[in-house]
Amino acid sequence: MKKPLRIGLVGYGFMGRTHSNAFRKVGNFFDLEYEPVLQAICARDAAKAQAFADNWGYQSIETDWRKLVERKDIDLIDIGSPNNTHAEIAIAAAKAGKMILCEKPLSMDGKEGAKMVKAIEKAGVANMVWYNYRRVPAVALAKQLIDEGKLGRIFHYRAKFLQDWTISKDLPQGGTGLWRLDAKVAGSGVTGDLLAHCIDTALWLNGRMTTVNAMTETFVKERKHTLTGKVQKVEIDDACAFLAKFDNGSLATFESTRYARGHKALYTFEINGENASIAWDLHDLHRLQYFDYRDEGKLRGWRSIHISDSDHPYMKNWWVPGLQIGYEHTFVHQIADFIQAISKGEKPCPSFRDALDTQYVCDAVLKSAKTQKWEKVPKTKL
Amino acid sequence: MKKPLRIGLVGYGFMGRTHSNAFRKVGNFFDLEYEPVLQAICARDAAKAQAFADNWGYQSIETDWRKLVERKDIDLIDIGSPNNTHAEIAIAAAKAGKMILCEKPLSMDGKEGAKMVKAIEKAGVANMVWYNYRRVPAVALAKQLIDEGKLGRIFHYRAKFLQDWTISKDLPQGGTGLWRLDAKVAGSGVTGDLLAHCIDTALWLNGRMTTVNAMTETFVKERKHTLTGKVQKVEIDDACAFLAKFDNGSLATFESTRYARGHKALYTFEINGENASIAWDLHDLHRLQYFDYRDEGKLRGWRSIHISDSDHPYMKNWWVPGLQIGYEHTFVHQIADFIQAISKGEKPCPSFRDALDTQYVCDAVLKSAKTQKWEKVPKTKL
Amino acid sequence: MKKPLRIGLVGYGFMGRTHSNAFRKVGNFFDLEYEPVLQAICARDAAKAQAFADNWGYQSIETDWRKLVERKDIDLIDIGSPNNTHAEIAIAAAKAGKMILCEKPLSMDGKEGAKMVKAIEKAGVANMVWYNYRRVPAVALAKQLIDEGKLGRIFHYRAKFLQDWTISKDLPQGGTGLWRLDAKVAGSGVTGDLLAHCIDTALWLNGRMTTVNAMTETFVKERKHTLTGKVQKVEIDDACAFLAKFDNGSLATFESTRYARGHKALYTFEINGENASIAWDLHDLHRLQYFDYRDEGKLRGWRSIHISDSDHPYMKNWWVPGLQIGYEHTFVHQIADFIQAISKGEKPCPSFRDALDTQYVCDAVLKSAKTQKWEKVPKTKL
Amino acid sequence: MKKPLRIGLVGYGFMGRTHSNAFRKVGNFFDLEYEPVLQAICARDAAKAQAFADNWGYQSIETDWRKLVERKDIDLIDIGSPNNTHAEIAIAAAKAGKMILCEKPLSMDGKEGAKMVKAIEKAGVANMVWYNYRRVPAVALAKQLIDEGKLGRIFHYRAKFLQDWTISKDLPQGGTGLWRLDAKVAGSGVTGDLLAHCIDTALWLNGRMTTVNAMTETFVKERKHTLTGKVQKVEIDDACAFLAKFDNGSLATFESTRYARGHKALYTFEINGENASIAWDLHDLHRLQYFDYRDEGKLRGWRSIHISDSDHPYMKNWWVPGLQIGYEHTFVHQIADFIQAISKGEKPCPSFRDALDTQYVCDAVLKSAKTQKWEKVPKTKL
Repeated sequence: MKKPLRIGLVGYGFMGRTHSNAFRKVGNFFDLEYEPVLQAICARDAAKAQAFADNWGYQSIETDWRKLVERKDIDLIDIGSPNNTHAEIAIAAAKAGKMILCEKPLSMDGKEGAKMVKAIEKAGVANMVWYNYRRVPAVALAKQLIDEGKLGRIFHYRAKFLQDWTISKDLPQGGTGLWRLDAKVAGSGVTGDLLAHCIDTALWLNGRMTTVNAMTETFVKERKHTLTGKVQKVEIDDACAFLAKFDNGSLATFESTRYARGHKALYTFEINGENASIAWDLHDLHRLQYFDYRDEGKLRGWRSIHISDSDHPYMKNWWVPGLQIGYEHTFVHQIADFIQAISKGEKPCPSFRDALDTQYVCDAVLKSAKTQKWEKVPKTKL
Repeated sequence: MKKPLRIGLVGYGFMGRTHSNAFRKVGNFFDLEYEPVLQAICARDAAKAQAFADNWGYQSIETDWRKLVERKDIDLIDIGSPNNTHAEIAIAAAKAGKMILCEKPLSMDGKEGAKMVKAIEKAGVANMVWYNYRRVPAVALAKQLIDEGKLGRIFHYRAKFLQDWTISKDLPQGGTGLWRLDAKVAGSGVTGDLLAHCIDTALWLNGRMTTVNAMTETFVKERKHTLTGKVQKVEIDDACAFLAKFDNGSLATFESTRYARGHKALYTFEINGENASIAWDLHDLHRLQYFDYRDEGKLRGWRSIHISDSDHPYMKNWWVPGLQIGYEHTFVHQIADFIQAISKGEKPCPSFRDALDTQYVCDAVLKSAKTQKWEKVPKTKL
Repeated sequence: MKKPLRIGLVGYGFMGRTHSNAFRKVGNFFDLEYEPVLQAICARDAAKAQAFADNWGYQSIETDWRKLVERKDIDLIDIGSPNNTHAEIAIAAAKAGKMILCEKPLSMDGKEGAKMVKAIEKAGVANMVWYNYRRVPAVALAKQLIDEGKLGRIFHYRAKFLQDWTISKDLPQGGTGLWRLDAKVAGSGVTGDLLAHCIDTALWLNGRMTTVNAMTETFVKERKHTLTGKVQKVEIDDACAFLAKFDNGSLATFESTRYARGHKALYTFEINGENASIAWDLHDLHRLQYFDYRDEGKLRGWRSIHISDSDHPYMKNWWVPGLQIGYEHTFVHQIADFIQAISKGEKPCPSFRDALDTQYVCDAVLKSAKTQKWEKVPKTKL
Repeated sequence: MKKPLRIGLVGYGFMGRTHSNAFRKVGNFFDLEYEPVLQAICARDAAKAQAFADNWGYQSIETDWRKLVERKDIDLIDIGSPNNTHAEIAIAAAKAGKMILCEKPLSMDGKEGAKMVKAIEKAGVANMVWYNYRRVPAVALAKQLIDEGKLGRIFHYRAKFLQDWTISKDLPQGGTGLWRLDAKVAGSGVTGDLLAHCIDTALWLNGRMTTVNAMTETFVKERKHTLTGKVQKVEIDDACAFLAKFDNGSLATFESTRYARGHKALYTFEINGENASIAWDLHDLHRLQYFDYRDEGKLRGWRSIHISDSDHPYMKNWWVPGLQIGYEHTFVHQIADFIQAISKGEKPCPSFRDALDTQYVCDAVLKSAKTQKWEKVPKTKL
């Protein structure tokens, strides 16, 4: 008999849906000690909260997250609301002794993130940040291959996250679905929204990043603000590219933009090692590209591996070889891993502390874009 | 408030899982009049049935499908058991006035299928066969394009379904997970299992097939039978290829095998029209290849369309552009379409009658392989 | 000091250009005992012959191939004129003791081809047919891999040659550049023009083909004839597809058409063996796709091999790794191989006899399309 | 009757071959006023020069380039020798009134390049630098599309040139075939050898580059020197990545390395415009990727354009649609364009002055890598 893991979700947006779907599905596909129970959904607008609850099967609603956090029948607070709300909720939840899941990026900046990590670690509660792309089976296989030493010394890391949805000048900023364009709510533009994913993966796969050198750009300088109705200056970064160096001696380039016509969500990375290279992209997330120099000379080539076999990470829990899974499954894997970790008394990852490392890189990137200099990435010390 | 659609599922194998997942998810993503209720799962082995029920949330179990069919608290019988059980269950369910969903292929052969269709149509119950690949968004878009006349006169249709999982001579036949190799249970080999999918799609996209000319082969002649423990003759077709002609004057080639090293489940088709061509394959099911001769001359090329925009079939119900869905979603779409059809008083498709057309083609294919001649595909007349 | 190989070319069309280019280039890239000398070009129209001679550096012209064949200063007759002229010229050249190169297909049919082979073999002259695709480095590597046993037992062979240049009903038949649509000149349509290539490669890679079962179609029934000015019945096959069986037990499908919108010259084949599979296509002729089941399980995938390394066939003679060659190089390789063979006293391949095997398959294919039955491929016996 | 263009080539290495092949072929495929005549090849080693002359058909040899430059029977000096020899030869050739072709990069640095440009322009001789990738048909089509305004405002430019041939520590530096690793001969590493190509294309397609910010790395610090026999410090850059800004407001990233396992010569670029994007890579140089936002919404996708039609740049001079050309053809196109320009009294491009712009960017890149700051690219003023 499975134990209940009673969840209180804050936020009913896009991430509220991905998380809810994961909570509902995970037990059907993974044999776990705990079964998520959709206890409560919290949002300021009661009608919208209720509609969401009805749709997903949440047993109750709240309109004030403070009440949610205090409820005795909740084990875990899942923060799916905009970036500028993460810190306050997380710190309160920690104080209330709840486990905490938090959408990425962790915080508005490293300073705020550090406060959150302190609070969480002081409270000693299980915690994790939804950097879901670590749980793409192909990405998890990449991690395996690196850990096995298949690549040898790593020379190059390259990552991009390209979108094209904000090219139109008529797109407003702010409000539902558009808060990502509002610096006061999002903290930053593509850096916190998209590059944060690239950085999280990179730190996981390639170790510590030491210095960065960035440029940013805001192509559309002014947009109408949905909430104020006025044309206002756009304060987020529309695009950001940076050079970086890692502790292991490898060189890296990172780039993100929402102005790359033809790319909807092209998160892609490539890693070149002495003996082998790997490449992946989100538009075909069920494939991993792999080149091995140790193959017989005349038969060397990039292999396109269809990640759907039972010996690929997570895949034995799904269908049969050849049948692909999609984006939403990464969240299922992440909550499965979270539950397995707490069952074993291990620390789920990426933890708030891991996510703080990413935050520090983002800070250094944004700083470098201003100072026009190489900036060191501070080490997480608390 | 949604109305309940109380489901009784027969079979807990691979297809039992895909259907159950679809029943559980569909209401979260599609706004429908009916909500599937997992009322009962039926399997001969009570322990296995119970384990399945526990995993998926079925409220009760049965060990005799006859009892299931008679239960008053069941609205719909979903047949997910091996091919040789379809007819008996479906006919009984029809008599009991239940709606019926049936896994493909419809039946062991056309003769049996015709009996099923008669029974179902006499009973006037809603019915549908799980040819799920019609509900891949890219395939549904292909249908749209053809219906819009984008391709013009069609000259060629080409389909393949290639696998490689039975190459080893040590693989036994029969029993759980291997009944597809046992002709008595499966009816045929790749023809009914894989080509049936290709044929269903082809009839849907390209209209009536008139004549066929086939060859089949059984590469491994004998295999140990799991149930008898003896080495027995293999009676299924390991591979089948056929030429075909359609009513619209187009020529076609079809091929399926389980001996194509390197392909796990490569269902692929290509259609060449006067003005445009389309191609698709299951290994990258979220893409459609499209070539339009009306593009500016120097810019003509095959477009790789990432089927993840809100104006692509079914996709507005899922995530955001660029984020792919997978195999399991085709079943969600199919049950959503079924519910929408019955809500509107329309006939769900593919119906048993539609599936009987596919059965007749399969029969003609297998007959041609024996007679070594062109064989006409009989028209479905009842 | 290289010995001269004095060439007399018949025909100045597309193939006249590919051959002349090969003759001029081969000595720059391959170290050979003989150097082709462009001695004479022969065509009925003296002005056109002279223009061609001026462009390519031929030292003289002829307007009657009979005179060319008799010239003492010619060592080799290269037949690049339309199909219906091959036999007469080849037989005369054989009688005159010349070495002979002949464009494909060898002849109008097997009967005519057999006469040619008899004449050539009686004369004992060096001979070769320009099935140039054997000399694509990727295809030559495929041959190496098969000969090394990399694939193991072969189950499936699949080939297509798809074009789209005759879809318009306004395209006339006959005359310069369009004789391929005139059955009296071409012998057949896609069968002799395109499938002959597929068949030649298949016999080379996969051994003897035993039986075939074909269908053909002529989509546009009448076209204006350029020479007569009248609308006449089209007698060639616009499209042809056939099933086939090989001596080694493998099954095959072949297809060719000039009505596959979006494909300009898509010659593609795939071979599935017990242990490995290979695939190739002419639109990216510098790549070979390779899948090896013996790779580590989780890392199995199709390798896209960029055939540009010095250990790939022919490639050490060209540039450096990563830099691709193109279509015309296949002719250079073929004449290089021809010269190397005659230098060593070996038989160049494919010989007229090899090409006759292909002709017999074409005959059986066209016969089967008429009889609507499986037809045996006769063995070449002379 | 064509006029002779009498060529004196300096250098018999890799580039000596590509140029000689182009000179020999161009007249067969392009109808030009001048026909290149292979008058003389110059190299210090008389035996090697003679062997090269015999192979390619040069009518004479020289062992001192000064003599070559002074010969009255030479119209054009083609400089194919290592980078550190370009300036002296070019300046002398200019003084002697010869037309001049020069391999890229133009010079060891911008200062030296400026002297060359002054000398050439003072002499008023026709001049061109072999940045051959401008003449890839797909790249020339990209230029056409940009000039037609198809892309609209350009936001992003991205280029890479990745190789993997110097990863082994055992590879020596210096001497024949390896002078590219010797800073004294090459001037720089990947910056001058590979990025120079990327920069030349970028300036041509995207206009003036204003500022750059670079990092470089030398992964293998010491290598045996072939000429001295000693292990010496490696002074070239093994890898270089830089950020850049263009006059048109677009952001760019550039990267090159010889340590990217799996890439032999992957020169690739992508340009994202408001309305359309294009991408290309050298490993499949006969294709252009194109995305147009103005396509019907549900049918938007990246088109893979097979650049082999008669309305694609240069392609009507070669074979028929579907048949690809390769690397060497870019040199044929470039000499064809050169001859057409001088026939019309136009300036061939890229001129020495154009190539000097690239040199200045390279200088700024290398300077930035040292200063660790953004550096301005000086404007070419003479």
